[in-house]
Parts: sequence; C-alpha cells; structure tokens
Amino acid sequence: MPGIYAEDISVGEEFDLGSHHVTEAEIVDFATKWDPQFFHTEPDAARDSYFGSVIASGVHTLAVFQRLAVQSQYSQWHVIAGKKLHNVELRRPVRPGDVLHGRLVVERIEFDDRGRAEVHIRGRLHNQHDEPVLHIELDSLLKTREMEKNVP
Amino acid sequence: MPGIYAEDISVGEEFDLGSHHVTEAEIVDFATKWDPQFFHTEPDAARDSYFGSVIASGVHTLAVFQRLAVQSQYSQWHVIAGKKLHNVELRRPVRPGDVLHGRLVVERIEFDDRGRAEVHIRGRLHNQHDEPVLHIELDSLLKTREMEKNVP
Repeated sequence: MPGIYAEDISVGEEFDLGSHHVTEAEIVDFATKWDPQFFHTEPDAARDSYFGSVIASGVHTLAVFQRLAVQSQYSQWHVIAGKKLHNVELRRPVRPGDVLHGRLVVERIEFDDRGRAEVHIRGRLHNQHDEPVLHIELDSLLKTREMEKNVP
Repeated sequence: MPGIYAEDISVGEEFDLGSHHVTEAEIVDFATKWDPQFFHTEPDAARDSYFGSVIASGVHTLAVFQRLAVQSQYSQWHVIAGKKLHNVELRRPVRPGDVLHGRLVVERIEFDDRGRAEVHIRGRLHNQHDEPVLHIELDSLLKTREMEKNVP
C-alpha cells in the first residue's frame, strides 16, 4: 500500500527503475492483442522487413516503462491517476532479447487548490548496449497529506 | 497485406476507427501485467478509491486506440514504425463497461531524402456518452512508392 504523498517527493530526485527482459513471445503476444502489424506479430515475415526481425510495438515499449516505474516507485506513491504524456520518442527499435533499463527524474511539482499535486517526471529506457530506446515525459496527479487530513 | 503508401494519403483525411468494449476483466488483466496499481487491478479496494471503481491504465487506453487504428487503417498502410507521441491527454477515467469509439485525422505529411515520409496524425477516443477520454498526436514513418521502386 502507498505511503508517499506529493509533499514527500523532491524536485530533482532520480530513481533507478531496474530492468525488463523483452522476449520474442512477449513482443508477439502484446502486439497480437493491441498492435497487430506484421513487423510486430510475424517473425518469419518480419525477417524480410525494414528492420530484419520483429520489433516491439511502441505501446509495448511504453508499457515496459510503466511496469518498471510502478514496481519501483508508483506503487509506493499516492497516485490518483496519470494525466498526460509529452514528447514520447521511440528512439530505436526494441528487438527480441533486449534488456531494457529504466530511470526517472522528478522535474516539477505543482500543488492545486483542491489539495492535490501534479508531479511531472522525465523517464527513459536504455537497452543492454546503453543505447536510448524511449524518452518520455509524464504528468500524474498525486494526493497530498493536506488532502488526506481533510477527508472525514 | 498493406497496399497504401505515403503518396496515397491526403492531409485532412479523416477516418472512423470503430469501437472497443472495455470490460473489468480486460482492465484488470492489462494492468496486472503492465501497470499494477490497486485502482486498476483490485475492484474491491478500488471502490473506496478516488474514482469509486477500477479505471483503465492510461497505457491500456492508448493500446485501445492503437488496436482500433491498426485494424481500421495502419494494417493497410506501409508503416515502417511509430516514432513519436505528443500531447497525449487522458481526459476522463475509462471504467468497466465503457465503449470507446475512435477517430483519426491526417494532419501533415513530410517526405524525407531517404524516400520515406513522416505522417502526423491526431486521434481521439470518445466514450458511449460522447465524452472525450483520449487525445493523441502521433508521428509514424511510412514507405513511399518512390522508395519501393528503388529496392532491387
């Protein structure tokens, strides 16, 4: 259960999110449901495609970032909901066997007049060659201790 | 198999993407794997939470948009890969039973010097009450007929 409110987080704090191993089966499974383009779902056909193998759906890559961020941080934060994503860049293809490593930095915190706070973070995933594969900026709404005090 | 190249798409073209019915099981399944926060994964605990029920992960909502866009359009386009997402706004919570309806508009097409084209689209999802739940802008790289001609 979460214990960290918006007041407990500091601008400039940086978190290592750990890593996730992407398999061909995971790439194909995710894309079969959510992004059924042949260069995500058909290993044989993808060998003759632009990248020479299946590559992960961009939404899958984003999901890997979210999974690492939740496991490492958000599950301890009093998150109300995600609000916005900005400047999401898929910088390199993610291939079967890649190990993606995540980091996030707290960029800005804005308290609103309803006792909540928008926390703006910048995150990234690098692969096992230390090449960037994802850049992301996202704004989430968090509870404050102040807000929690006022709930009867 | 795709048949539509970048030259076949026109700025201003608008596409109805059809709709997708979001169930509680789908919300819980998706989030258990990719966004395990209790307000996505635990219907009982979520009843006492900010929104009063589980709500879909933002990444899940994005995945619904991608699925509709692929089924309706991208599967017929010569897509090389997605490149960027901008200004992704999660405007309202998505709840069990919601039916999300998608649209996309082609905003801009830029041909590069390698015979490819970046196609910029603006998309959205509305729920069954015609309320906006997702706004998204995305840039994808497409093949051109010109490029295909030059491949031996």
